[in-house]
Amino acid sequence: VLTEFERSSNDLVAKLRSVIISTKFASLMGAEVVSASPGNVEMQVDFKRDLMSQHHGFVHGGVLGFVADSACAWAAGTLAGDVVTSEYKIHFLAPAVGDRIIGRARVIKESRSIVVAQAEVFCRTDDREKLVAIALSTLIRVDPKP
Amino acid sequence: VLTEFERSSNDLVAKLRSVIISTKFASLMGAEVVSASPGNVEMQVDFKRDLMSQHHGFVHGGVLGFVADSACAWAAGTLAGDVVTSEYKIHFLAPAVGDRIIGRARVIKESRSIVVAQAEVFCRTDDREKLVAIALSTLIRVDPKP
Amino acid sequence: VLTEFERSSNDLVAKLRSVIISTKFASLMGAEVVSASPGNVEMQVDFKRDLMSQHHGFVHGGVLGFVADSACAWAAGTLAGDVVTSEYKIHFLAPAVGDRIIGRARVIKESRSIVVAQAEVFCRTDDREKLVAIALSTLIRVDPKP
Amino acid sequence: VLTEFERSSNDLVAKLRSVIISTKFASLMGAEVVSASPGNVEMQVDFKRDLMSQHHGFVHGGVLGFVADSACAWAAGTLAGDVVTSEYKIHFLAPAVGDRIIGRARVIKESRSIVVAQAEVFCRTDDREKLVAIALSTLIRVDPKP
Repeated sequence: VLTEFERSSNDLVAKLRSVIISTKFASLMGAEVVSASPGNVEMQVDFKRDLMSQHHGFVHGGVLGFVADSACAWAAGTLAGDVVTSEYKIHFLAPAVGDRIIGRARVIKESRSIVVAQAEVFCRTDDREKLVAIALSTLIRVDPKP
Repeated sequence: VLTEFERSSNDLVAKLRSVIISTKFASLMGAEVVSASPGNVEMQVDFKRDLMSQHHGFVHGGVLGFVADSACAWAAGTLAGDVVTSEYKIHFLAPAVGDRIIGRARVIKESRSIVVAQAEVFCRTDDREKLVAIALSTLIRVDPKP
Repeated sequence: VLTEFERSSNDLVAKLRSVIISTKFASLMGAEVVSASPGNVEMQVDFKRDLMSQHHGFVHGGVLGFVADSACAWAAGTLAGDVVTSEYKIHFLAPAVGDRIIGRARVIKESRSIVVAQAEVFCRTDDREKLVAIALSTLIRVDPKP
Repeated sequence: VLTEFERSSNDLVAKLRSVIISTKFASLMGAEVVSASPGNVEMQVDFKRDLMSQHHGFVHGGVLGFVADSACAWAAGTLAGDVVTSEYKIHFLAPAVGDRIIGRARVIKESRSIVVAQAEVFCRTDDREKLVAIALSTLIRVDPKP
C-alpha cells in the first residue's frame, strides 16, 4: 500500500515521463526521471561515449546543460505545472567522466509569475559520484498565478 | 587568389571543422562552421524536428544551449587555442521555430587566463532570421599566457 | 519647441529622476539619468575615489553592479512601468579607472510577465571611454500584462 | 588557549579586516567579517534605511550584490590569496527587510587559474533570518598556480 506521499511522487514521475515522451530531444538523450516530489526532481542520462563526448573524450557541455536545464524545469513543473525556461547559468566544475550523468534539482523560490531552481549535475561510476556542474535557472509559468 | 585575411579565415574554418569531427556530440547535432575570423565564429545546425524539439514543437533549449556554448568556445579558440567552457548564461527570448539554427559569437575580452565571449542565436526560415537566445560565456585557456 | 519624441524622452527622464529621489541608495551613489527613450537609458555616477574604490584603487565592483542593475531596471521601466530585478549577471572586463562611470542599457525582450535587458558599463576620462563591464538582467513586471 | 583551527580562523579574519580597511566602498557600506575558515566566510552589513533602501523601502539590490560579491571574493581569498571577481550572477528571491544583512559564501571549486564560489544572502531581524538572494561567482587568481 502506498502512502499519500508515495502516490503523489508516483503521479509526478508518471507525469514527467509523459513529458519526456513528447520531448523529442529528451528522448534522443535517453533522459529518465528517477524520482520526483513537490519541488524536487532526480533524473539521469547514460553517457554514450560515441555520441555525447567532446574533443577530450569527456561528456559534452551541451549534454550537461541539457541535464541541468531539464532537471530545473521538471522540478519547477512539479509545483507550477507548465513552465518554460527563461534563462539559466551553468558552471562546469570538473571533467565529466563516468557511466551515467545524474541531475538533481530543487526549487528555491516560487512566485506569482516565475520559479527559481537550482541543479547539481554528477557523473557516476559504480557507486562513486562526482559533482561536475552547478546551475541556477529562472522558469516562467505558462499560467501565472492570479 | 586569396588575401591573407581569407587564407587566415579558411585556416580557422578548417581547424574548427577538425575539432567538430573529434567532438561526437557536435557531429550528432550536425553542427557546421559557416565562417570564422580572429575572435568571431558563425555556425549552424539544421533543425531536425523529430530529434530536436521540446514538448511544444519548438527547438529544445538544450540544442540552443549547445549552439551558444559551441559558438562562444570556437570564437575564443580562434584567439586562444584550446579552451574549455568555465560557465555560461543563456536567455531564451522567443519560441525557436525555423529550418535552421544560427549561432554567432564574438570575443569581448581576452586576458591572461580566460576569454569572455558573447553569442546570439537565431532561427532562420527562408531569408528571415529571428533572435531566439543570447548568451555570455567564460572560457578558460588550457595554456595560459605567460 | 520639442518634438513628440523629445517630449516623451523628457517625460521619461523626469520620471526616472523622481524614482532616484525615492531610492536612497541611488542618491548615496549620486546616480544621474543622462537620457532615456522607450527601451533605453543612459545614466552616470561620478567616481569618488575616497568612497567607491576597491583595494587596488579601481572602482569597486559593487558600484559597477549598482550601475548595471539600475540601468537595466530603468530601461525596463521605460516600457513596463514598475519593475523589480529578478536576477542579473555581470562580467568585469577591465580595471575600472576614470572620472565617471557610465551605464547604458537597452531592453532586448519584453514579454507578458518579464523584461530582459542588457547593459554596458564604461569608465570615462576626459573624452575617452573604456568598456569595463557587461550585464544581462531579468526584470519582473509588478503589474503583468493581461 | 586557541586550537590551531581557531588560530588559523583568527588569522583569516584579521587578514580580511585589513582588506576591508583598504577597500573604501566596503568601509562606506560598513561591512564586517563575522567568521572565516579555509573556503568559507560570513560577513554582515547593518541596514541603514536612510542610505541603503530602494524605492519600496527594502534593501537596495546594489547592497545585496555588494554583499554577495564580497562574500564570494573573500571566501575565495582564504584559499587563493589575492583574487579579482570575473563575473557573478545573483537572484533576488524575496523583499529584503530586516536590521542586518548577512552574507555567507563558500568555495565550490578551486582550480589553477580560477575559483568558483557560491553565496547566500539573508536578512536578519532579531533571531529570524530570511534568505533574500543567492549568487554564483567566478574569481580569478591574481597569481595563478604554477
